[in-house]
Amino acid sequence: MKFTIDSLNTSLKKELQSKIDFKTKPLGSLGILEEIALKIGLIQNTLSPKISKPTLIVFAGDHGVVNNHAVSPFPQEVTSQMVFNFLNGGAAINVFCRLNNIQLKIADAGVNYDFEPNSKLIDLKIKKGTKDYTSQSAMTTLECEDALKKGADIVTKVYSEGTNSIGFGEMGIGNTSSASLLMSAFTNLPLEECTGKGTGHSEEGVQSKIEILKIAQNLHQYKTDPLEILANYGGFEITMICGAILQAASLKTTIIIDGFIATSALLVANAMNKNVLEYCLFAHNSDEKGHQKMLAYLNVKPILNLGLRLGEGTGVALAIPTIKASVAFLNEMASFEDAGVTNK
Amino acid sequence: MKFTIDSLNTSLKKELQSKIDFKTKPLGSLGILEEIALKIGLIQNTLSPKISKPTLIVFAGDHGVVNNHAVSPFPQEVTSQMVFNFLNGGAAINVFCRLNNIQLKIADAGVNYDFEPNSKLIDLKIKKGTKDYTSQSAMTTLECEDALKKGADIVTKVYSEGTNSIGFGEMGIGNTSSASLLMSAFTNLPLEECTGKGTGHSEEGVQSKIEILKIAQNLHQYKTDPLEILANYGGFEITMICGAILQAASLKTTIIIDGFIATSALLVANAMNKNVLEYCLFAHNSDEKGHQKMLAYLNVKPILNLGLRLGEGTGVALAIPTIKASVAFLNEMASFEDAGVTNK
Repeated sequence: MKFTIDSLNTSLKKELQSKIDFKTKPLGSLGILEEIALKIGLIQNTLSPKISKPTLIVFAGDHGVVNNHAVSPFPQEVTSQMVFNFLNGGAAINVFCRLNNIQLKIADAGVNYDFEPNSKLIDLKIKKGTKDYTSQSAMTTLECEDALKKGADIVTKVYSEGTNSIGFGEMGIGNTSSASLLMSAFTNLPLEECTGKGTGHSEEGVQSKIEILKIAQNLHQYKTDPLEILANYGGFEITMICGAILQAASLKTTIIIDGFIATSALLVANAMNKNVLEYCLFAHNSDEKGHQKMLAYLNVKPILNLGLRLGEGTGVALAIPTIKASVAFLNEMASFEDAGVTNK
Repeated sequence: MKFTIDSLNTSLKKELQSKIDFKTKPLGSLGILEEIALKIGLIQNTLSPKISKPTLIVFAGDHGVVNNHAVSPFPQEVTSQMVFNFLNGGAAINVFCRLNNIQLKIADAGVNYDFEPNSKLIDLKIKKGTKDYTSQSAMTTLECEDALKKGADIVTKVYSEGTNSIGFGEMGIGNTSSASLLMSAFTNLPLEECTGKGTGHSEEGVQSKIEILKIAQNLHQYKTDPLEILANYGGFEITMICGAILQAASLKTTIIIDGFIATSALLVANAMNKNVLEYCLFAHNSDEKGHQKMLAYLNVKPILNLGLRLGEGTGVALAIPTIKASVAFLNEMASFEDAGVTNK
């Protein structure tokens, strides 16, 4: 699948900056909100950007490695149990999306469970979990391409329904392990720097997780094509997020990137097309080890630092009020001239 | 004026922590939101706290020092001009309060301007600006007590109307200077570490501001009583915030502390009654030099780090969605048991 992503049109940059600077406030005093306002103005190529129907899509998928190795302290069935929790509105991401008026979509990317048809669950299942990457590729190249396309297609759909700001979450027991492998492959940092506690490993658990991931890395280390690397390590949910990010950028929507796992999908997307970064805001700095280094590798700054490490897109949902505030000050604040306030 | 502030009743602490820990998420994975939920639960002494009618009161006042010394790059008339901007809904704090459904009240604590009666402006004026503290006390002890009481009374009023979560903002050309003097007096840090750019001084401007403040500090340095120190340096808006904070704590409301100037008022309140801190959340880490050291002195952690240095209570208004999210997850998320999700 080929994505065409334009570099941002920066012709309004000076005018946008001037609009920001002449609001009734000390110069630069809204900090990162001013950077967000400028970026969204450029993405939408207007002096009066809007956040329309902000949407979060959570992709859930299972990981073959979990069947053979203790990479997570939680059992695999938690993935499907959490999907039911999403459908019933009881998970953190449900609460935060309700609170902040964010449209929430739940997609089965490849959970190891046969769900009954459910109008609230989008069926994008590739298959019931990836293969164990310690002995083979997590998915075939065809499956990987299929997952990219399905992630892209769901974005096209919500875009056609009026969304211009979108974020992605995930659920999948074992998926910090795929994210660590992808991080190591794309940043060239050793697995020790890319592997953290996930859902709550002890120090000992992290050590043993690193040893398991090294088996996979040794097996697949000669791959250099981003698609091949992604197919090697999975998972289906990460791959769909990657396709979703690429498509969102090609549609010029504002993309809000969540934590460790969503950023691992972005590392792949970025390796496929560097322009994608110009459409991304970074919701938060995760407490999961490695995320801060991912952000440093991408040379980007997160909006929030709340000590989160939950996933599901919760960082996105919590950052959206700040993003809305950035657009609101640009549109609604008076200028020095309008308000008759003396500028220094 | 005497304030009676109870220490928090911590009898529900274990039960609250357990409710937090058994939500469907990895242990501790909601970071600072878990700390906020616990704190508000303790303040309200319930397992199901609510944020009712969150309110922000902006106090505006002028500073005598501005008439004689260039402590700010903006002229004094900007204080009254910004009050009109607040009344017309065009300032940053208006935008953020509208966006986040926060009740906003504007009070004239002592602006050097004769406002026509206006139903949107609360008249608490002590007088038209403080005296210049480089040659005398900014206010008399009686004026200081009057301002504390007026700040307290307005809190009693909004509390009686149903508010249980409250923050305070300020407007007053020159008020970072009072805040620096108060910070130095209560933390014993030298003025050099307490004095920053304010609304946008150059490095040279900051140096000259420090020299001016040293004149005041030399004149008033022998005072040790918090009320006397506050009367020496002002301003009326800071004093009203101090009284408001003390009264809010005595009424067991959750207090959300804004940036450098609001925190200087808290330093005074804290010197008057140490229990006040137990009712405070800290909205953000301001970019104004000194604020981080104030927070370190109080041994507290801010919620947001957005690089703000605008004042008006904007940090409070931007932190309230995170505070609402903290209470919402505690009330609305399913537990492992409710959702049938396997705990590790």
